[in-house]
Amino acid sequence: MGSFKLLRKMLGTEDFTSSTGLVTTIRSLVAEALGVALIVFVGCGATLNFVTSTDIVQIGLTFGCITFACVQWGFSMSGAHLNPAITLGILLTGRLGWLRGFLYIGSQCFGALGGSFLLQVLAPRYHHGHLGTTYLFPGGVDPTCQSGDCIIGNVKPWQGFGIELMVSLVLVLVYLSATDPLQSEDETTNVPLAMGLAVAGVHLMAFPYTGCGANPARSLGPAVIAQQWDNHWVYWAGPLAGGMLAACLHRFVFSSFRRHQRHQY
Amino acid sequence: MGSFKLLRKMLGTEDFTSSTGLVTTIRSLVAEALGVALIVFVGCGATLNFVTSTDIVQIGLTFGCITFACVQWGFSMSGAHLNPAITLGILLTGRLGWLRGFLYIGSQCFGALGGSFLLQVLAPRYHHGHLGTTYLFPGGVDPTCQSGDCIIGNVKPWQGFGIELMVSLVLVLVYLSATDPLQSEDETTNVPLAMGLAVAGVHLMAFPYTGCGANPARSLGPAVIAQQWDNHWVYWAGPLAGGMLAACLHRFVFSSFRRHQRHQY
Amino acid sequence: MGSFKLLRKMLGTEDFTSSTGLVTTIRSLVAEALGVALIVFVGCGATLNFVTSTDIVQIGLTFGCITFACVQWGFSMSGAHLNPAITLGILLTGRLGWLRGFLYIGSQCFGALGGSFLLQVLAPRYHHGHLGTTYLFPGGVDPTCQSGDCIIGNVKPWQGFGIELMVSLVLVLVYLSATDPLQSEDETTNVPLAMGLAVAGVHLMAFPYTGCGANPARSLGPAVIAQQWDNHWVYWAGPLAGGMLAACLHRFVFSSFRRHQRHQY
Amino acid sequence: MGSFKLLRKMLGTEDFTSSTGLVTTIRSLVAEALGVALIVFVGCGATLNFVTSTDIVQIGLTFGCITFACVQWGFSMSGAHLNPAITLGILLTGRLGWLRGFLYIGSQCFGALGGSFLLQVLAPRYHHGHLGTTYLFPGGVDPTCQSGDCIIGNVKPWQGFGIELMVSLVLVLVYLSATDPLQSEDETTNVPLAMGLAVAGVHLMAFPYTGCGANPARSLGPAVIAQQWDNHWVYWAGPLAGGMLAACLHRFVFSSFRRHQRHQY
Repeated sequence: MGSFKLLRKMLGTEDFTSSTGLVTTIRSLVAEALGVALIVFVGCGATLNFVTSTDIVQIGLTFGCITFACVQWGFSMSGAHLNPAITLGILLTGRLGWLRGFLYIGSQCFGALGGSFLLQVLAPRYHHGHLGTTYLFPGGVDPTCQSGDCIIGNVKPWQGFGIELMVSLVLVLVYLSATDPLQSEDETTNVPLAMGLAVAGVHLMAFPYTGCGANPARSLGPAVIAQQWDNHWVYWAGPLAGGMLAACLHRFVFSSFRRHQRHQY
Repeated sequence: MGSFKLLRKMLGTEDFTSSTGLVTTIRSLVAEALGVALIVFVGCGATLNFVTSTDIVQIGLTFGCITFACVQWGFSMSGAHLNPAITLGILLTGRLGWLRGFLYIGSQCFGALGGSFLLQVLAPRYHHGHLGTTYLFPGGVDPTCQSGDCIIGNVKPWQGFGIELMVSLVLVLVYLSATDPLQSEDETTNVPLAMGLAVAGVHLMAFPYTGCGANPARSLGPAVIAQQWDNHWVYWAGPLAGGMLAACLHRFVFSSFRRHQRHQY
Repeated sequence: MGSFKLLRKMLGTEDFTSSTGLVTTIRSLVAEALGVALIVFVGCGATLNFVTSTDIVQIGLTFGCITFACVQWGFSMSGAHLNPAITLGILLTGRLGWLRGFLYIGSQCFGALGGSFLLQVLAPRYHHGHLGTTYLFPGGVDPTCQSGDCIIGNVKPWQGFGIELMVSLVLVLVYLSATDPLQSEDETTNVPLAMGLAVAGVHLMAFPYTGCGANPARSLGPAVIAQQWDNHWVYWAGPLAGGMLAACLHRFVFSSFRRHQRHQY
Repeated sequence: MGSFKLLRKMLGTEDFTSSTGLVTTIRSLVAEALGVALIVFVGCGATLNFVTSTDIVQIGLTFGCITFACVQWGFSMSGAHLNPAITLGILLTGRLGWLRGFLYIGSQCFGALGGSFLLQVLAPRYHHGHLGTTYLFPGGVDPTCQSGDCIIGNVKPWQGFGIELMVSLVLVLVYLSATDPLQSEDETTNVPLAMGLAVAGVHLMAFPYTGCGANPARSLGPAVIAQQWDNHWVYWAGPLAGGMLAACLHRFVFSSFRRHQRHQY
């Protein structure tokens, strides 16, 4: 295969040149945009809980359930990445063309903006807050502090980066292994459930630390609409680094387990 | 096919003319009524929590689990719509005759009345409240307000309509894709789980906003028994509009993905 | 078939006459006893929460998860009824011999006593309470009441009976349909998950009303160990009536749906 | 087969002598270490909840979801024991070589140290607490006590041992039956879900009593990093005894159910 052909294969130009490919690609972009819009609308909407006090379980389970629902209806259309970190992981394992991958990420961001805008319109203005923007836990002022940096208990940006990296690592590892074609004969893998429970788990842990982005598109939407950009780089760098690390682990350590090498009793 | 034949096919008269069809139809109506009755009895019963303070997670998971249970036993009998919005979505995708569809909706409403009445009888009178009627979050009086409309933080009827539309869109999209015959070879789809988690997710988000009807029959039952009709139109118009939108998206954008066009890695 | 043969078939004497049958029967009794013991130990242990205030979600999910776990390991051994109401339902649908059925119920009660005794031993004495005994919500004294019955908001015994009946109806309907051999080709039914979620759902609803027995054996264990017998009949009559009603519905209305009559789109 | 051959088979030397075996073994050790590291990082990270008050549901569901996620991606690599008690149970049922088994336990402990260290680095120092160390509920001082041991309501070490034994029994029984090759034709068993829900259930119950180790590696990690060794033996002896008991029950009572002896209706 010549290098030109290789390039075309990497870019995945056949996703656009045939009419079937083009229609499929457009539909998958619509699915990605609508999926992320619903996740942002429902998940961030749950963080604006104005009836009871902050309830991490409510927020974590809402993100988990709506991710489950969107993967359930979107999986057969676009693979239901619904997350730039997952799209990056898939790209690095070579299962998707790069052109289509970048369009996915664009669609996801566009969908997140739409979901966040809709939430701003439909939620009572008085309870908007920051529309579910992710932010690092601010800590408080040390009462015994006399000078210097008197803030204690805050999550520092590099700590937030590490936490976002770790929780995204979990999500992308689960996605890559659950959808690995080498394991696809295993009928018991329920991909929507796998993603839903993984998303619920990482939100239940990381919400107090960073608000649990674990998804750059989900963090971008409210940031644009509410114009809150503090430490926004953390919510892109962390998940994308986690996605890259997961893809490397999957490709070089784990994925080479062929079916006949699976652990068997 | 003549237009008369087409009409008969659309109405689904064969559901009534053969004795097998008639028996099957009657049984499916019993299943729809009993299913909605159990959802209303158990779900609304959970909102009358007189032991701890309002707990959105308790309410959301109760609705999710009882929906799961009713879809589990009812799916092979009637398809377990248990929701006029889902029945409308199914009708618009042409999978059910219109006569039977409208009887389903009637059965669902009848079942909701029964479940709500039973709850009124079995719950301690002192804790009845409104038997779990759905209502728009009323907000509060702005203390700095001097004249005019001093209510702040309330959910306006058109906002409630939008939220009910969005959450019903999620439910109907999940139902339509999980039960799509074109995807039925996919053995891993667990329809009861899909509906249960989707219902749990939307309740966890929308309960503070609108009480989360997302099901006109579920909203009708307590409204009749407790005679609370404020903004009741929202709980019909929103879910039915959401069901229509989901059916259009499914039919014209997503459903035309044939199996050989499924997203594959 | 003569009436004697019919009687032997109903009683299921072949469960005891062959050596294979006898071994299988004894093992299934061990499984039922251990399963109920674990449910009572873990579930009732969760009600003795001495760290945070009463949390219905914690209690409901604990009962759901431990039921899931016990059905997961016990289903292939005894069918994992783990509940006299379910055993009664199975008996009335004719899937089990009556002799074995009554031994199941005995094993379940014995296991519940064991689990409850173990909890009394292993829990700190100061926090025993009533070891998770089920009781009817007592309500409170009406401050404006001057004479007569001044208790308001309590759940009356006949109301408790009705609630126990309804929640057991849900459990037994789900069990009967999920394990119906006529539906057994449907590979997606996850019986442990079905029972776990159904149990979680009914506890989340009924815990404030009656403590949610929904299982006479589970109610018997703590009642014996803690010697709390108030309204104990409710926790036998309700679930058994619910099991009977579910068996009748399943047998005469729903179960006659043969596979070729399943609802199909 | 000579006794030397039998010994080699028991030790599982073929896991190391062939190059395929060696590569597979090393990969499985990496998977065990990474899996336990993620469980400890995410699960113990959830116990350091500095935003709301202690929430047992949040902690229990986090451990359940992250265990689900790690079993989901790790099952095909190492069997995803992720717990020395489960490895011991598997060893006693003869499904794994002893050499590999002990290396698994070493990997799990190493992973737990890594996860705990990472949590210490990434969590705000002010909220470290004991990094999620498991400890026995300390009770309080009896105000009416005048002399002697005035602590009441505490969990005594032997009680903690019993509780850890029981909850580990549940986990290992579920693991052994869900992965039993004799039941492996049963397509509906979702092993990650089984382990996730079982872990969630036991944490929801046992967290107030012992912090719910149920996994010696998970208890070791924070103990080393935070240097908290009170009653640490409980968290090794209890789970390992539970694993042994589960293996005996599975092997001598339950596992001899061959497929043709499965409970059938």
